[in-house]
Amino acid sequence: MKTISEALNLILAQADLIESETVSIHQAYNRILAEDIKADRDYPPFNRASMDGYALNISDWNEHGLRQFKVVEELHAGAVPTQKLGKGDCLKIMTGAAVPPEADAIIKVELSAHQGTTVSFEEIGDLKKWRNIALRGEDRKTGEILATKGQLCNAAIISVLAVIGKMEVKVAKLPKVSIISTGTEVLPPDKTVLPHQIRDSNSFALQNLLKKFNIGLEHKILVPDDKTLLREAILKGLQSDILILSGGVSMGDADFVPEVLNSQGVQTIFHKIQIKPGKPFWFGKKENGTVVFGLPGNPMSCQVGFRVFIEPYLNAKLGLPKPQSLYLPLMGTHQKRSKFTEYFPCKIINKNEKTFIKTHEYNGSGDIAAMIGSDGLAAHPAKSKKLNENTIIEFLPW
Amino acid sequence: MKTISEALNLILAQADLIESETVSIHQAYNRILAEDIKADRDYPPFNRASMDGYALNISDWNEHGLRQFKVVEELHAGAVPTQKLGKGDCLKIMTGAAVPPEADAIIKVELSAHQGTTVSFEEIGDLKKWRNIALRGEDRKTGEILATKGQLCNAAIISVLAVIGKMEVKVAKLPKVSIISTGTEVLPPDKTVLPHQIRDSNSFALQNLLKKFNIGLEHKILVPDDKTLLREAILKGLQSDILILSGGVSMGDADFVPEVLNSQGVQTIFHKIQIKPGKPFWFGKKENGTVVFGLPGNPMSCQVGFRVFIEPYLNAKLGLPKPQSLYLPLMGTHQKRSKFTEYFPCKIINKNEKTFIKTHEYNGSGDIAAMIGSDGLAAHPAKSKKLNENTIIEFLPW
Repeated sequence: MKTISEALNLILAQADLIESETVSIHQAYNRILAEDIKADRDYPPFNRASMDGYALNISDWNEHGLRQFKVVEELHAGAVPTQKLGKGDCLKIMTGAAVPPEADAIIKVELSAHQGTTVSFEEIGDLKKWRNIALRGEDRKTGEILATKGQLCNAAIISVLAVIGKMEVKVAKLPKVSIISTGTEVLPPDKTVLPHQIRDSNSFALQNLLKKFNIGLEHKILVPDDKTLLREAILKGLQSDILILSGGVSMGDADFVPEVLNSQGVQTIFHKIQIKPGKPFWFGKKENGTVVFGLPGNPMSCQVGFRVFIEPYLNAKLGLPKPQSLYLPLMGTHQKRSKFTEYFPCKIINKNEKTFIKTHEYNGSGDIAAMIGSDGLAAHPAKSKKLNENTIIEFLPW
Repeated sequence: MKTISEALNLILAQADLIESETVSIHQAYNRILAEDIKADRDYPPFNRASMDGYALNISDWNEHGLRQFKVVEELHAGAVPTQKLGKGDCLKIMTGAAVPPEADAIIKVELSAHQGTTVSFEEIGDLKKWRNIALRGEDRKTGEILATKGQLCNAAIISVLAVIGKMEVKVAKLPKVSIISTGTEVLPPDKTVLPHQIRDSNSFALQNLLKKFNIGLEHKILVPDDKTLLREAILKGLQSDILILSGGVSMGDADFVPEVLNSQGVQTIFHKIQIKPGKPFWFGKKENGTVVFGLPGNPMSCQVGFRVFIEPYLNAKLGLPKPQSLYLPLMGTHQKRSKFTEYFPCKIINKNEKTFIKTHEYNGSGDIAAMIGSDGLAAHPAKSKKLNENTIIEFLPW
């Protein structure tokens, strides 16, 4: 039986980086960059007025001692000056406008008195060059990398793609994923259930966990514990890059999943992990092909298995850094019965401007609603029986 | 000029809860529940085997001292027993199967020796009633609330909708939102720019920030600093529930936004907030109608304004609790020049299993790429000039 880190390493070893595709800036949200994004020109692209005021040449002020200037023009953002500034000239300029080459300082409007075509200023001593001007290229130089391969295309990145006029961008392709829920007792949610039957929840949990990555499904199949039907379902599922099964991976007489997978050429990489919940986790791969995750059928085990093992796999496959944990103090205590590392749902709670994680109440790993209202999973390490108040522990946000 | 909390209160006072609509379970991801979700039956719905083993009546074991039983049947999950258990009978049962009414304990398979139709067990002392059985209703009772109005439909909630057979769910409607970017210097990103022009980024930032809420746009308009064109754009935008403008809200000669809004019947609720960046924030409302946010045109101010003011507004409007901050220690220090509360982009960093926030490097609020690579915004409170290493500060994740 593998430890959690052994299992994770074996899983990540199969996460070859997926190829890329080009999408429009309008489709890029939440996709992962597969190319570095470079500045198309200097930013600011011109010497930019950072205040509303009067642009002038500092030699007029500092050397010639002028305090009264002729306003030759008014320059708004987006406009081009029609006049050259001569000695004693200035132009009224608005924030965001391109400062003409003859000007090298702006005196803000609040320090001026403007009458007709003349403006005079308060005495403010010598002017520093580039006062109230953001210099061309002072933020970013042409060719400078603004965002890197492997970053998630969020609003900040997409807004920069727009700034640099990049209407199409290379992103990681989305892997093809199929889901198979197994169990003779499991019916589709739109069917009437008899007292000994339950409705399928795992495929819905998994399908919606995948939406975080923008991944849709190739096939979603619900199959009873029947070898022939399971074989058919698996054959379909193996057409995808990733196949996720739930149920049928324990040691019961009807747990056919590993056997049928093997019979279809999927080799077992490992079976079982020292984790609670979710011990009967199965992982394998078809030669040159599909990676297969077999999750336990218990809803909580299934969701924990996804968060702890499949999510890091997807991050690696798509080129993202590994999912970020938080290390936060525990509010209250937590008791553990098994000898394994235990994951339990928690909420983030702020108290007196400090952030804690707090155990989220639920009734054991069979509780259908165990995860509702939780912000993520906390890890109770294998070695400690009890976590005391304020112990800093690892928290995996959803 | 309003303080941040005065401004936020004035904004939240306009956030009437939006009405609801019914969507399919397949469309519910990331929407906000507008009804409480109740258990359709007990969970587990039947006494459920939680181990593979043999189900028997404990009186046979405890009172009659039997240690050898006749296996009358094998019961898989999803199957119904065909035999009644008599004295000395047991049935082989699989995890997840419904335990028949005559049985009240399961002995796990590992403690058994099964030959033909007979199974004998190791001596394990008296059996406790309901050993290895999850009792009907022990997790949740019929009618119990599993998820509440105002929760985000994530994978956990949608999986429970499936379990209870709820194929349709009431969620908060999505408000109609329009965006207007203003500025004569601003061109659409697919156009060639001259040296004194820039491409529109704010509408892309805002449009993609709204995607967090699943909100698409009614209108997205780019308009120069021209009163007539701005009036036309605003008239269109006012057909939405929410209108967000960027630019044109400062005090410059071309900052027409407040004036034109007022002329179209939008009343100023406030203008300017004691915040950096983003001071020239404008907020107003048309009588019985559209709520209008006027954000500064500077890209960083625009994104900060959205995160600090518009996001809490949307949460309230949709019935969500307010966005959750984290309070984390600062790695490094942070110096502040203005007298206002200052928001600056930060990254979450783990060091020696402790979580910190760290200032994200950028070149000032005009830097187009300032937010890229940041995980959120940290708040430098107005009253302190310098934040020392390890000061706990408020962090607003993206």
